[in-house]
This record gives sequence, structure tokens and C-alpha cells, in this order.
Amino acid sequence: MNSAYIIPDPWHIIEDGFAAERVMSSESLFSLGNGAMGQRANFEEHYSGPTFQGSYVAGVYYPDKTKVGWWKNGYPEYFAKVINAPNWIGIDLAVNDQTVDLATAKVLSFRRDLHMKTGVYNRSCNMVLADGLELKISATRLLMLDPDQLGAIRYEVTPINRAAQIQIRPYIDAGIKNQDSNWDDPFWETLGIQANGSRAFIRSKTLKTGFEVCTYMQAQLWLDNQEQSLQEADQSSAHKIGFSHNCTVGQGQILRLEKLGGYTVGLYQPADELMPKAQELMDWASALGFEGLLQHQENAWAKIWERADIGIEGDVSAQQAIRFNIFQLNQTYLGKDPRLNIGPKGFTGEKYGGSTYWDTEAYCLPFYMATKNQAVARNLLTYRYRHLDRAIENAAKLGFHSGAALYPMVTMNGEECHNEWEITFEEIHRNGAIAFAIYNYERYTGDQTYMPEMGLEVLIGIARFWAQRATYAKSKEQYVILGVTGPNEYENNVNNNFYTNYSARWCLTYAKEMVQRTAVQTPREHKRIVEKTQLSAEEIQKWSAVAQGMYLPYDQDLGLYLQQDGFLDKELIPVRALDPAQRPINQNWSWDRILRSVYIKQADVLQGFYFFEDQFTQEELAKHFAYYEPFTVHESSLSSCVHSIQAARLGLMDQAYDFYLRTARLDLDDYNKEVHEGCHITSMAGTWMSIVEGFGGMRVVGDQLQFNPKIPSQWTRYRFKINFRGSVLSVVVQQSGTRVTLEEGPDCTIMVDQELVPVSA
Amino acid sequence: MNSAYIIPDPWHIIEDGFAAERVMSSESLFSLGNGAMGQRANFEEHYSGPTFQGSYVAGVYYPDKTKVGWWKNGYPEYFAKVINAPNWIGIDLAVNDQTVDLATAKVLSFRRDLHMKTGVYNRSCNMVLADGLELKISATRLLMLDPDQLGAIRYEVTPINRAAQIQIRPYIDAGIKNQDSNWDDPFWETLGIQANGSRAFIRSKTLKTGFEVCTYMQAQLWLDNQEQSLQEADQSSAHKIGFSHNCTVGQGQILRLEKLGGYTVGLYQPADELMPKAQELMDWASALGFEGLLQHQENAWAKIWERADIGIEGDVSAQQAIRFNIFQLNQTYLGKDPRLNIGPKGFTGEKYGGSTYWDTEAYCLPFYMATKNQAVARNLLTYRYRHLDRAIENAAKLGFHSGAALYPMVTMNGEECHNEWEITFEEIHRNGAIAFAIYNYERYTGDQTYMPEMGLEVLIGIARFWAQRATYAKSKEQYVILGVTGPNEYENNVNNNFYTNYSARWCLTYAKEMVQRTAVQTPREHKRIVEKTQLSAEEIQKWSAVAQGMYLPYDQDLGLYLQQDGFLDKELIPVRALDPAQRPINQNWSWDRILRSVYIKQADVLQGFYFFEDQFTQEELAKHFAYYEPFTVHESSLSSCVHSIQAARLGLMDQAYDFYLRTARLDLDDYNKEVHEGCHITSMAGTWMSIVEGFGGMRVVGDQLQFNPKIPSQWTRYRFKINFRGSVLSVVVQQSGTRVTLEEGPDCTIMVDQELVPVSA
Repeated sequence: MNSAYIIPDPWHIIEDGFAAERVMSSESLFSLGNGAMGQRANFEEHYSGPTFQGSYVAGVYYPDKTKVGWWKNGYPEYFAKVINAPNWIGIDLAVNDQTVDLATAKVLSFRRDLHMKTGVYNRSCNMVLADGLELKISATRLLMLDPDQLGAIRYEVTPINRAAQIQIRPYIDAGIKNQDSNWDDPFWETLGIQANGSRAFIRSKTLKTGFEVCTYMQAQLWLDNQEQSLQEADQSSAHKIGFSHNCTVGQGQILRLEKLGGYTVGLYQPADELMPKAQELMDWASALGFEGLLQHQENAWAKIWERADIGIEGDVSAQQAIRFNIFQLNQTYLGKDPRLNIGPKGFTGEKYGGSTYWDTEAYCLPFYMATKNQAVARNLLTYRYRHLDRAIENAAKLGFHSGAALYPMVTMNGEECHNEWEITFEEIHRNGAIAFAIYNYERYTGDQTYMPEMGLEVLIGIARFWAQRATYAKSKEQYVILGVTGPNEYENNVNNNFYTNYSARWCLTYAKEMVQRTAVQTPREHKRIVEKTQLSAEEIQKWSAVAQGMYLPYDQDLGLYLQQDGFLDKELIPVRALDPAQRPINQNWSWDRILRSVYIKQADVLQGFYFFEDQFTQEELAKHFAYYEPFTVHESSLSSCVHSIQAARLGLMDQAYDFYLRTARLDLDDYNKEVHEGCHITSMAGTWMSIVEGFGGMRVVGDQLQFNPKIPSQWTRYRFKINFRGSVLSVVVQQSGTRVTLEEGPDCTIMVDQELVPVSA
Repeated sequence: MNSAYIIPDPWHIIEDGFAAERVMSSESLFSLGNGAMGQRANFEEHYSGPTFQGSYVAGVYYPDKTKVGWWKNGYPEYFAKVINAPNWIGIDLAVNDQTVDLATAKVLSFRRDLHMKTGVYNRSCNMVLADGLELKISATRLLMLDPDQLGAIRYEVTPINRAAQIQIRPYIDAGIKNQDSNWDDPFWETLGIQANGSRAFIRSKTLKTGFEVCTYMQAQLWLDNQEQSLQEADQSSAHKIGFSHNCTVGQGQILRLEKLGGYTVGLYQPADELMPKAQELMDWASALGFEGLLQHQENAWAKIWERADIGIEGDVSAQQAIRFNIFQLNQTYLGKDPRLNIGPKGFTGEKYGGSTYWDTEAYCLPFYMATKNQAVARNLLTYRYRHLDRAIENAAKLGFHSGAALYPMVTMNGEECHNEWEITFEEIHRNGAIAFAIYNYERYTGDQTYMPEMGLEVLIGIARFWAQRATYAKSKEQYVILGVTGPNEYENNVNNNFYTNYSARWCLTYAKEMVQRTAVQTPREHKRIVEKTQLSAEEIQKWSAVAQGMYLPYDQDLGLYLQQDGFLDKELIPVRALDPAQRPINQNWSWDRILRSVYIKQADVLQGFYFFEDQFTQEELAKHFAYYEPFTVHESSLSSCVHSIQAARLGLMDQAYDFYLRTARLDLDDYNKEVHEGCHITSMAGTWMSIVEGFGGMRVVGDQLQFNPKIPSQWTRYRFKINFRGSVLSVVVQQSGTRVTLEEGPDCTIMVDQELVPVSA
């Protein structure tokens, strides 16, 4: 099923032993990020084997010209790509005139260790070179959480069996490309390249978007603690600069290079301050020293873990997995900047382009609401508010009008950049998740200020879209939504997807309620918004009419909501009856065969039951879970978490646990055989939900936080802290019951196992 | 609506006056072809304005690597492209050191004249150059029907207002590209380039496919009938060779260049005979002289017109149009070679790639059956038989098995080369048209020998496909066909398209009947086929079961077959209620909006009524025509002809005539604003059907040819000849009645206006 080579450990991600075919997967799994930049775990020195070079700067993108086979009206001209940034980690290493290269050396030992508690990554290896020299390399790397434009590497080289002539050359290189460039265009131009003592700088600018970035480094070298002087900088190409040193290193001596580096970025400094800022960062880091940086980093991560950690006792594999998920989420997004979002690959790969999908609202928001202060979640909502005008433009391109908003399927700056008609134009349920996130934020944080400031405008745009997109079918005397793709992307262009229709109906009603509420609670803001949006009473009446008349596909005989019209005409053969060799079907079946089959890629009807859980009975959930789960192939990373939660809520603990493992260890155990392309960041938030909302049974009802825990038999207990309406609650869940303690913040009321428990510090 | 600049004339296509914005359209409309090669009406001399250079050699293609935005399982790796062939028509012309270029000269007069009767194209123009010199150019061009590897140009230049220094340089050039190359790859390599007296040769080979072509020319020059000697050949690049001449031409003197040229092709000669063959062709043509070539060409076209002409009296515009359609069809395909087929753009452009669509069987076959001897139509059927193995492979890629065959949507060599899942994988009704063509061929020609030799194997492959592709829906207790695109491509991935289900049912029944018939009529062939295909009685039983249990969407209240499941849920707003500014919708609406709308691109249910006309009553046809026509936008070139026929059959003569004009003058009047990309060749056969089957009411019933004519009031009469079962019938249709005369061949029985008329010579 998978390639589970990561050694279980509560706090460490460990690989032991070298295998060339694992290099690209490990580059993803051991990647580092700090919310502002990140990089795959590429080797510092040259590697001639299969590798996927990747360094990324948050918010810096390139609008690559769209590539299609057949153009359809409405396709966006450009696809904003997460772009590979200049490389600051590179170190050329030659020993006795041989380029050191793990692909050609005989590797004696090899170990990677990513310490999630401190955010520090170490790689150590012993190898024999062609001339018989045994060499040891140890590389320790970190990207500072604060200041987040800085990283550091300690790189140590030791000849083991005899002295050796070693040439070492730390460099920075702006001559990089994207593997996923559509037209092989360069994405960067180099503006300037210069050196200053042991420091070097390359100023680059992205083409078209004009983001300016200064890539910098400082190099210091010691031989057994004796500082060595590097040669003057040499510029080996128009895009690359480095410092060389050539010396004899005795047997057992350590040649140690400490390299500071990173990016100063035009998003945060004016262009002419990028170099001075880089100097300042290097001054600060030099004063602290490498050990000081390690300590500083550990302290910064400790603050994150203090709020976000989930301890699991009794199952080290589950423990490692949940921490890996939490760690990666924090590496990707820390919520400091409302211009940023949570890319599906974070800083671990290029695939998918764009940074923002409905994943953010549907899966990630609860994690950030629970583990950070509410400003972080609010920044995620603000991000969409800032893109409202673009969402209105996007809808207009598809023929909608009068302020109707369709948020993009994939975006970097608010513009749509995906181009498959069945997804781009038809997977419109994303609008529902964006409205739901506003509701979810309010019920969780209790903060009602976002609504009049920004949220209501978003809701109006979304409601307008649904009111126009639904059409009246005389045949049914109801409103229908034709030609959509639901969350299950293994159906395209279907009519009346239950999830889509249901969430459209909910959006229309919720928008109307919020218009009415703001009229009462914040009349001045209400007036401003009504004027700005030219909202009329007739329009709201239309919303009500569409909501009330919304058709939902339902089969009376089965007593089931149907995924879409015509679902029951399919061959209803459960997944377990499929030949395992045919799976995953997305790698073995042609697209048309997948489409006409009954198989469900990810929770669809059940996603609706998850969002709107209080609108369905436990019996309805049980019935729909029993019906749809057997047809679900879970070939999306976002499927297992919802099924884990639903199974837990139904007390199906074995299933819930299986689904949990699948979501939690999706990347660590590479279930989908694609971790070499990067990690599935957004589904990691689903893992968190599986524990907290699934096993913990946590939900918000009114102003209460409720727990109805059912933990897997493999675990003794687990514990986590959670933010709720300004309080920090410590939660311990175990077989015998759940204990919640108020750690800080105002008193609040929680419910555990149906019993009200007032909590105070 | 259109840009109708072509001057009406019964036999000529005429453009008068120069307009740069019309150049590309006229390049399409005045294109020449002879079934083996063809070319757009590009100017011989340099032209710096917008132009689309195109010369094509039948059967020579290149498998361009597929380009897609998002790869779907099952997509073909390659897309076989009609490729731009080396240019043999080019003539560089400079006058007083000024390059002659219509884009920069002041044009005084300009006229194109394509004489359809003789297949000769002339262009003449007067212009004033920058230095004030007035110049006249006259160019006459033809592609010989026989021998079909040869073409000729007479190019005359005259200084009008004073003597001029003229440099003329006829050349051939193999350094050409396709505009629609996916990856800017070159498609040709040049193998050799050489000259020999006044003749020059370039041997080229297509990359990957290895088709060898020798492009050749011969140039002769006269000044007022005094032959001039050209300089020795000069090779101006690695791919181009020409002969120069520089001389003073007195006022009113004519500098005349006669250029022979064309291609000898490895499809017809071994590689080492390509140059000798070219020499032979030039020897033959030189002996005949240019005037002799013109006469030879006129005689060859006369033979075609003898059988294919349709005369229309009373409407010169209709007359010109039908001749243009017949002329272009004959330029494209003459049925000599079963490896060739009827490309949708013929030799008039690159668009679409591939050469074969279902258009051939659904629209073109009747024209060729009626106007050529039956071997031509049989070659078209043989073409598909030769591709049967590839069709079986194509189906296997989509998960079908046991000899099920799915013919490709677009092909050059039998392999699928289209890559839009909703069409490539789902527009499977094409299989039905291929089976129907076999049935149609038999009923028309009476030739039952194709069936046991080849046809039955094709029918078995197709029946197997349908039996596997239909699935049993418990919900309906019938067989359904899910996830298809019907002829109306403005619906994608629908369930139970009426046309598809109906024709699948028909194929299954027809295949069974033909298995049974061959068992009786040709038992030896039957045995061979049963053994080869491993056909079992159980399998045939399954075909019957699927056919008998086939679900057809039908609305009881309306008494209508529905285009597909759910059709009535749409907003049923007729086309006439649309804002004209929104049309054509395919240029104004996003794809999703088109899909969920009710609007029909081309006849779909009505296409079924057309094919299977004897299975529906006149009342049913009337009802379905009245229902579906108002929703049809006719944005396919293949729509109007079917509607014209159906309207004529219903006696709706004004509608029938409007539809006729739309199909007949589609390109001449550029209804779809795209004639610059090339002409719509296959729909031209639909124009022919509109007259013969629509206004003429011709149909085959049993062994009779029936006529039930209703001619448009604008016409006095029309007359055409038609092949039927080895006879040639002369048909005159006029308001007062129809007269059919046997011109040659055996006696046969026809019916006119319900009255049996035995016909004899």
C-alpha cells in the first residue's frame, strides 16, 4: 500500500539509511518552513540523482500563461504559480578533486532527523568516495520563525580514514526554474549581484508581477574551531555567486561551515531597503551565534506547541503523525499577513499552483481558530474580503451580474487561475464553504465584529450568485442547480448535487438573516453596506424564494438524499468488490469510466452532513454513512478526515481509527504514492479535526463548547489545548472520561458527555 | 450577420476590390485542391499583411505531441496533424529594388476569379508602388486533377506607366511550419536540395512518420513572348532554392513566368523514384504547354460535373453556392485511395487536425454514393475496416474488452488523436454513424458484398462496444447509457442521450441481423468471421437483451423523446428570445452557461429522426421539429442541412430555404466569422443533401428510389444527375413536378410523388 520508511518517534521524523528512490519523498517530508518562506530538504551539495529542487517565498508568485488543449470561453489567461525562489542553501563540495555526490558515492550510513519540537533539521552521512576516502557530512538547518526572513546552516565535513584536500564553496544562485512552468518561461530576472566581505547578495525580480527579493548569505569557516578565511567572492555565472576555500583537512578534523541566508522581500521592505535589511539580519544572527539561533528557534516553536500540541499516549505512530500534521501546518501559515494563505503543498512542492483553495475554509480554519488567537482566523476571512471585487469580476466573466460573486477555485491574488471547465466553472460549491467559514468563525470565537465590517458584503455577493445560478424548473416547480461538480470530483457537470444545492440554500438563508441582524445590531454599518451594494428588499425576497423552493434530490423508497440526479441509475457495486489491481481508479481507469461509475472520490453528501450536522438526526447520518461510504474510494486527501469524524460520531471506532491513520499518515506513509511532489498540507488540518471533532466529539452549540469523546482503543489518552472564545482550555480525553480545565481567559461553559461543566481557572 | 463580398455568378467565385482584412478569408474561399494535394489561395509574391500560408499533401501527417492543461487517463499521447507542406508556388518579385507587396502598395484594382467549371484560379491586380510605378500582375493557377501530383502557374507582370527594372525569382521552400503546432516543433526535415537546368527539387521527410515528399518546380520566363534565361539556381537557405532573373521591362511589356510544380509523394512512389517521377511530370507538362494543361484540366473537371452538377434556375446565389459546395468536395476527396478521407477543412486550413470525423459517414457518404461510382463510397467504408484493429485498441484503452471497438473521434491512421474527455471519451455516438453508413451503402448501391468481406467485422466490434457500454439500471429496470456527449456538443457528460441510445439499440439489432443474414447468404465468410472474432450465440443474445431493454428518455405528457435525462429541468427559453448581441453563444457565453442552457448546437434528436426516418411517423417528426428547432442555435456547420431536410419534408418551405442558404453559403458569406481558418468541407455534403434529400425528397425505400419534391418558390427548377444501383438518372425537379430519366445503366424503378415510374433509357 505504501512505503512506510519513517521511523516512529513522538517528536522526531527520522529516516535511517540511504535509498536513492526515496530522496524526492524525503525532500518533501523533511521540508522546512516558517510561514514566510520554506524549502524542500534538498541536499546542500551537488546531487546528480533524481531530485526536485524547491525554495519558496510566501506571497511571491508568477502569472504563468495558461496552457490548454482546447480553449473554452471563460478560461483565465494566466495561472498564478508558486515559484521556485533562488537557492541560498547551496554548498559546492569537492574532495581530492572529486565532486561530492551521494548519487555516486558509496553511502555507509545516512540519517535524516527533523526535530519537530525545535524546527531543526539534521542530516548526517558517511560515505566512501571513488578514491577510497571515507567522508562524513553533517548538516543542520533551520528557518527562523522569528525573524522569518532568515535561515541558517551548519555544515560539517570530516575525512575519516585519512587527510584530504577539500574545496568548499557556499553560494547563492538565482538561475532557477519551475518544473511546472507551462511554457518554459523564466520567472525571474536578476537585477544585481554583489559581495561584501563574507556576505553576498543577489537582487532578483519576478517577471510580470515585479516582486523584488534579495537573496543573501554569509559564510564563515572553521577548521577544528580555527576560523579560516574564504577567498573573495567569485561570480560563476550571471545568476550565481559564491566564496571558495581550499585546504587540507587532517584525518578526523572537522571543517565547519556556518552559512546564514534567506530572503528579504519587497512585500515587507521597500526595494532599496532589501540589502540593508539583509545586513541587519546577518548582524543580529552573527551576534547571537549558531547555538544562540538554535535556542531562539526552540523558544519560538515552544510557544506554538504550547497551544497547538496534541499528545497521544499508547500509540507512537499516531503521536508522531498528529505532531507532523500540526508542525507542517505551522510551517506553512502562521496568520501574520492577511495577504497570505495556506497553499495545498505549502512550501513542499510546486504542484497545483495558486495558494488558496476551498480547503482553507472547509478544513483549515477550525485548526487555526482553535490553536491561535482569533486574529489569525480573522486574517483568513479578511483574505477573502480583500478578494471580493475579484470574485465579482470572476462571476461576471461567467455571465453573472449585479454584484454576484464567485470565488475562484484556485487563486493567488483573487483572480481565478484554474482551467478545467468542469472544475473552474462548475465546482461552485466553494462559495458555500466561504460563507460557512464566516458562520463557523462567529460561532467559535463569538466575535460578531467581522460581519458588519466585512463579512456581510461577502455573504451578499455569494447569495446573489446562488440566486442567479439556481434556475426555476417548471417540470419540478422548484429551483434547480444544473451543471455542477460537487466535492466529489469523480462526477462532472451533474444536475442538483445535494451538497451544492443544500449549501446554496443555507447561504441564501444565512445571508438574509445576517442582513436582518446587522440592521438591528449595527444599523450604521448596515446602511453603509446596503448603499454600497445597492441591496433591495425585493432582492432579499428573491433569496428567500429560491431558498424555500430549492430542490434536493431525494429517494423516497430508500429514504436517502441522492448525491445528484440520476445517481441510482449507476451500477451500484461497492468498492470492496473491485479488483484491488484496479485501484486507485484514478491511475487505472479512463476518465469517462470513472465518471459513469458510482465511485466517490471524497465525502460529498457526507461533507454536507458534516457542515450542517445540527440539521440532520443521528439516524439520518447513520443511514447516509452506511449508504455512501461503501462507494467511496478516498482518492482525495480530504476524504478520510470527514469519514473519520462521521464514523466516530456514529461510534464506529474501528473505521474511525482506520480513517484517522489514513489521513494522519497520508504523507509519512505515502498512501497515494505522490509525496515526492510535496506534502498535502491542507488535509493535515483534517487530521486535526479527526482527533478533536471526531474522537473528542468537540462541537460548538450556541455559546457552549461540547465534548462527546470516544477515543480509539489503541490510545490510553490524548490531550490538547484549545482556544475558545478567548479562553485557553486544556483538554484531556481518556477512556474513562474527559477533563477540561481553564488555563487562561474568561470563564466559559462546556459540556462533556451531555453534562454541563462550568469551567474557571 | 456576415461579410458577403463574393459576387454571385453561376460558375465563378469572384472577389472584386482589395481589402486586407479579407485576404485570409479569400485564401480559404479560393483554395485549390485535387484530392491528392491542395493549397490556400496565398499570393505567389511576398505579402506582409495577415496571411495564413498553407499547402497540404493528402495522407501526409505528423503526430504532434498532445497539449493539455490537465491530463486525464486515456488521452492519446499524440495528435495527428494535417501538416503544412513545402511551398512550391512562391515567386519573389522586386521592381526598381522595391519588394512587391500588396500590403504596402496602393492597390488600384484587384480581382480574384475561381472558375469552378475548369478548376482554374486567376488573380489580377493593378497597383502603384512607392516610387510611383504602376504595375499589373496577373496570376493563373491550377492543380491538375490528372496527373494529381502536378500544378502550374502563369504569372505575368507588366509595368503600366513606364519601364521598370524587375527582379523575379521563382522558388520552392521547405522551411515551413504549422500555425497549430502544439510545441513549436518542426514537422519536416530537409533531406536534400538540388537543381538541374530550370528545374529544382527539395526532398523532405516528415519527422516521426517518415513520409517522403519531393517538392519540385520548373520555371520558364518570357518577355513579350521572347524567352529569357534564368540565372543558375541559388540556394538562399538550408530549405529554399530558386532561380533569379533581372531585366528591364518596357512600359506595357509583359514579363511572363510559367512555373510547374507540385509534390511527388512516397505514398505512391518509392523514395528513389520521387525525383524521376517529378522529372517525368514536368516533361509531360512541358510538352503539353500551359494552354494544353488548361484544356486538360477543363476536360477532367467536365467529367466530374457531368455526374455531380446541380443546376438551379431562378436564384444565382443558390446556384453559385451549390456548385461551390460540390466543387470543394471534389477538390478534397475523389475516392481514389482508401487510405485517404475527407478532412473537415480539406486542403483549406489546418484547424482540427486529423482527417476523419463521423462527418464522413453521417454527411459525406450520400454525396459520394450519388455522384461517383460505388467504388468510391466503398473506399470510404474500407477505410474504417482498415482501422478496426485500432478501434479495438482505442476501446481497450478506455477499459472495454473482447473485441469491442470504439472508432476515434478524430483520426489520421485509426488512432484517436482528440483530447477533450467530454468528446474523445464520450461522444461515442460516432460508432453508430459508422454502422449506419454500412446500412446506407447497401440500401443505396444494392451491393451486399461489402458485408461479408469487411462490414460484418466492423458491426461486431461496434455491437460489442454498445453491449458493454450500456449498463443495467435497477432503478429503471432497463439498460442505460451514462456519461455521453451527443451530436449536440453543447451538452457534455449527460445520461441517456436519445440519439445515442437509439442508435446503439439500432446497431445491436442490425449487427445481429447481419450475422444471421451472412450465415444464410455467405456461410463460408460467416464461418471465417465467427472464428476470427470468436463470436458466440450467448453474445448475440446479450445484444438482443440490451437492445430490447434499452431505455429511451420520453415525456408522456408532451409525447416527446427527450434529448437526454433531465432536459425538461432547463429554462426553456427559445432562441428567438435571446438578445442577438449574445450570439453566437459560443463566442459570448462561458462554457458552463452554454452547457446548462437549453440551446442546441446542432440537430440531435432530429439527427436521429433523419437517420431512422422510416421508424417515425410524419406527425412525430412534426412534433419533434416544432419542439426542438426553436432551441437550436445552429452553431455547428452540420446543423442547418438536417433542419433544411426535415423542414422540407414537413412542407415548411420558407424555413427549409433559409436553412439551405445558411448551409450552402456558410463559407461564401462567412456566417460563423471563421472562414479565414478554412472552409467547412464536410458540411458541404450536407448542402447537397438539403437539395437532393430535402427539396428533392429523395429517399431509398427497399430497392426503389423515391422522390417527393417540394422546391423553394425562389427557384424555377433544378436538375441533377444521380447514381443509383449502377444507373445514372437525370432528375429535373420543378414546381409542376419531377421528371427522372435514365441516362445509362440498367432499368430501375423510382417513385415520384407517390406514383411508381419504371424508368428505362
